[in-house]
Amino acid sequence: MSTISSSAVTLASINPKVLKCEYAVCGEIVSHAQLLQEDLKAKPGSYSFDEIVYCNIGNPQSLGQPPVTFFREVLALCDHPSILDRDETHALFSADAIARASEILDVIPARAAGGYSSSQGTKGLREVIAAGISSRDGYPCDADDIFLTDGASSAVCMMMQLLIRSEKDGIMCPIPLCPLYSASIALQGGFLVPYYLDETTGWGLETSELRTQFEDAHSKGITVKALVVINPGNPTGQVLEEENQRQIIEFCKKESLVILADEVYQDNIYIEEKKFNSFKKIVRSMGFCDKDISLVSFHSASKGFYGECGQRGGYMEAIGFSYAVREHNYKLACVNHCCPIMSGQILASLIMNPPKPGDESYESFSIERDGILSSLARRAKALEDAFNSIEGVTCNKAEGAMYLFPRIHLPKKAIEAAKAANSLADAFYAHRLLDATGIVVIPGSGFGQVPGTWHVRCSILPQEDKIPGIISRFKAFHESFMQEFQD
Amino acid sequence: MSTISSSAVTLASINPKVLKCEYAVCGEIVSHAQLLQEDLKAKPGSYSFDEIVYCNIGNPQSLGQPPVTFFREVLALCDHPSILDRDETHALFSADAIARASEILDVIPARAAGGYSSSQGTKGLREVIAAGISSRDGYPCDADDIFLTDGASSAVCMMMQLLIRSEKDGIMCPIPLCPLYSASIALQGGFLVPYYLDETTGWGLETSELRTQFEDAHSKGITVKALVVINPGNPTGQVLEEENQRQIIEFCKKESLVILADEVYQDNIYIEEKKFNSFKKIVRSMGFCDKDISLVSFHSASKGFYGECGQRGGYMEAIGFSYAVREHNYKLACVNHCCPIMSGQILASLIMNPPKPGDESYESFSIERDGILSSLARRAKALEDAFNSIEGVTCNKAEGAMYLFPRIHLPKKAIEAAKAANSLADAFYAHRLLDATGIVVIPGSGFGQVPGTWHVRCSILPQEDKIPGIISRFKAFHESFMQEFQD
Repeated sequence: MSTISSSAVTLASINPKVLKCEYAVCGEIVSHAQLLQEDLKAKPGSYSFDEIVYCNIGNPQSLGQPPVTFFREVLALCDHPSILDRDETHALFSADAIARASEILDVIPARAAGGYSSSQGTKGLREVIAAGISSRDGYPCDADDIFLTDGASSAVCMMMQLLIRSEKDGIMCPIPLCPLYSASIALQGGFLVPYYLDETTGWGLETSELRTQFEDAHSKGITVKALVVINPGNPTGQVLEEENQRQIIEFCKKESLVILADEVYQDNIYIEEKKFNSFKKIVRSMGFCDKDISLVSFHSASKGFYGECGQRGGYMEAIGFSYAVREHNYKLACVNHCCPIMSGQILASLIMNPPKPGDESYESFSIERDGILSSLARRAKALEDAFNSIEGVTCNKAEGAMYLFPRIHLPKKAIEAAKAANSLADAFYAHRLLDATGIVVIPGSGFGQVPGTWHVRCSILPQEDKIPGIISRFKAFHESFMQEFQD
Repeated sequence: MSTISSSAVTLASINPKVLKCEYAVCGEIVSHAQLLQEDLKAKPGSYSFDEIVYCNIGNPQSLGQPPVTFFREVLALCDHPSILDRDETHALFSADAIARASEILDVIPARAAGGYSSSQGTKGLREVIAAGISSRDGYPCDADDIFLTDGASSAVCMMMQLLIRSEKDGIMCPIPLCPLYSASIALQGGFLVPYYLDETTGWGLETSELRTQFEDAHSKGITVKALVVINPGNPTGQVLEEENQRQIIEFCKKESLVILADEVYQDNIYIEEKKFNSFKKIVRSMGFCDKDISLVSFHSASKGFYGECGQRGGYMEAIGFSYAVREHNYKLACVNHCCPIMSGQILASLIMNPPKPGDESYESFSIERDGILSSLARRAKALEDAFNSIEGVTCNKAEGAMYLFPRIHLPKKAIEAAKAANSLADAFYAHRLLDATGIVVIPGSGFGQVPGTWHVRCSILPQEDKIPGIISRFKAFHESFMQEFQD
């Protein structure tokens, strides 16, 4: 790697918005973990642990979760359609995967998964997704309201690019929040208007808090343009009640805010008492139509039980936008990526139209899905219980999504030691945890938290047989840490 | 599609940089062509042509070019590795494709093409690409200098995001140029400093012109930060001479400009006398190292003979950047797309490491490659000759890339008629061409041209058997147009 550089590019000469933007999920602690991993490989046995356990990001397949067979069969056949009609193919692939691949190719011009599609995504695949949304919500969905995207990240970045004009434009965001939002707002030079979730009520979302923060921003001369809501929550794992969603919608309607609804975890609900309701469904159930409210729902093939993170498939459904605004969004898609990646487009259509009863793959698909989801539910519960069993740690229920966000009640001495080390207390704790156990979690400061409280975000994704080991190592570390820094 | 919208988002409330940005390649004429196509489908026989011929964009597979078999075999196997060891697989796939897929999976953590990779791209695949670059150039390449990207568009957008601070930061660009550059500069709010290519010397690039434009920008208070060079040229099709590249490098070194070298057409050279030399190779051959110059080379799996546009695979090689600046680039990749799409990463590694002599696929691969390239060369020559045979049209040689940029010498009356129709003369001409023949070309104004000259960009990609028909329809249209508007 180059270490000496030309004078053409220096930190002083690059975009200050880039300098300012932070992204904890791939940040310093992850780099440190990767160094440790290389070290472990080069000198096995040199640490008190024998592997790095990545709980920093929702990346299931890299932690050993196999992909959903039906999805991969269809992808492979779309990539290489010349084998579709071969006898051997019928021995290797399920009949409905072969049929589905053929149907998908039929809606792609020239049956070419190597061609650019429309920058909005292939019309025939958007129609499949629209049908899936209609069936999910019980309200119609128009394929022209769907923009296929390379996962949710690029979709969110595109919306921020569309909406933000200057540092006087505000976007309301939950705190704690997925750092994609803070980072993309910073990159566009916008203003993040925080609203705090209430940890004591299971990360409750109070409209009085929305009102307070909105008015505070307004009094500072900020034009609030949109409200981000993440449901199921990331990093917090809560699932919103329908009544709560209605209040949020009323608030946004009254203040003419675009609702940016991050619904990428809609398939990951772990408790019986709660179910996922899309914001679009609630908007429609309240009788609101396009002239009443602007809403963008983000979905992704990365974050469901199928966990196709590296395939970068996703979509956004945008309602309440004029034709003219939509055309500008189309242009943005065109400039930023020509067209959404074809295999991602195909995956996005598959997650919204999985095998149905009667299809050859239906049974195996159901077994794979239920197996993954019930295992995730067990892992979430085991980790939650473990955190709550440790003195000085409290953790809300993981109702959905892929993370826990336990609060670590750190002693003053630890906070002072962190300060002396020029570090935030949660980052200090997470680093010590990593060095002692190989477990990678992200400091709560990367997500935002009530000042004076300290958290870490921990994914529930390590394979089930590893969970007991993680828990016991975490416990042992925590006890020794608390002992070291007891007040 | 929603036609009435909420008051939350209006043209007045969105980002003015988005409003300002233009992108001709997916612009108005293409929308019009798509409407005509739907019309044709609904009412066959209602036009004097029976299909729309898309010459607007470099999209070979959508126009019927089959993908390269080896690439698709490997992609399919990486998507669905559970069939790798099955007997039937050996009947369906070549042995080297099976071996290659296995090698690729070996360098992906957990062999999971559905996992997030590093935001810079999988290390093992970057190593393969670095080896390919070393072998192409005869100079070493470091895998840490490679950033895998979702095609070249997202890479270019990312570099503009990194480099541009305000409207006082200038990027030098050739005119005519690929509108990705003007669009991404506009989106970042930067200043485009044009330098004109000389049509009379085959789109020659004169350093005296670079100097003039640089000084002019400087005198206006613009800080020029980078110079874009597209080689082979888009939309112009010329291939730079080595001596010319040296002059450009000297100029950029002297003025501390980052060289942004668009080399996505490096595999598409159609004449014996010219060959492709990467800017990296020339930089190294001049004895310059990282402290002397900053250079980014963009490459893509979309634009070579393989034409994998919809797969969005690409990379940039960035030399002469400090570790700190590189870290910020890494963060940008992380925010914008988490990680480059895995299948695109795999394709990028394949184009830089295709089958070698001795591999089972080598012969069929060579036949496919040579077949496509020699056909493209014939199509380029046929279209070039045709344009030059028409009165009032002149066209430089297509030495490389996928386009011709013929100059249309329009009569005054046509220019006036265009004005009366509130249109630019080249757009007027292109629209009339589309309506009369179904041929879609992009007006030269979308790429920039010397004021008072008019051009169209026409891809050479329609399949060979369609070329004679395109030529005769174009000729007939042009003659009738010129007759209609003769001065």
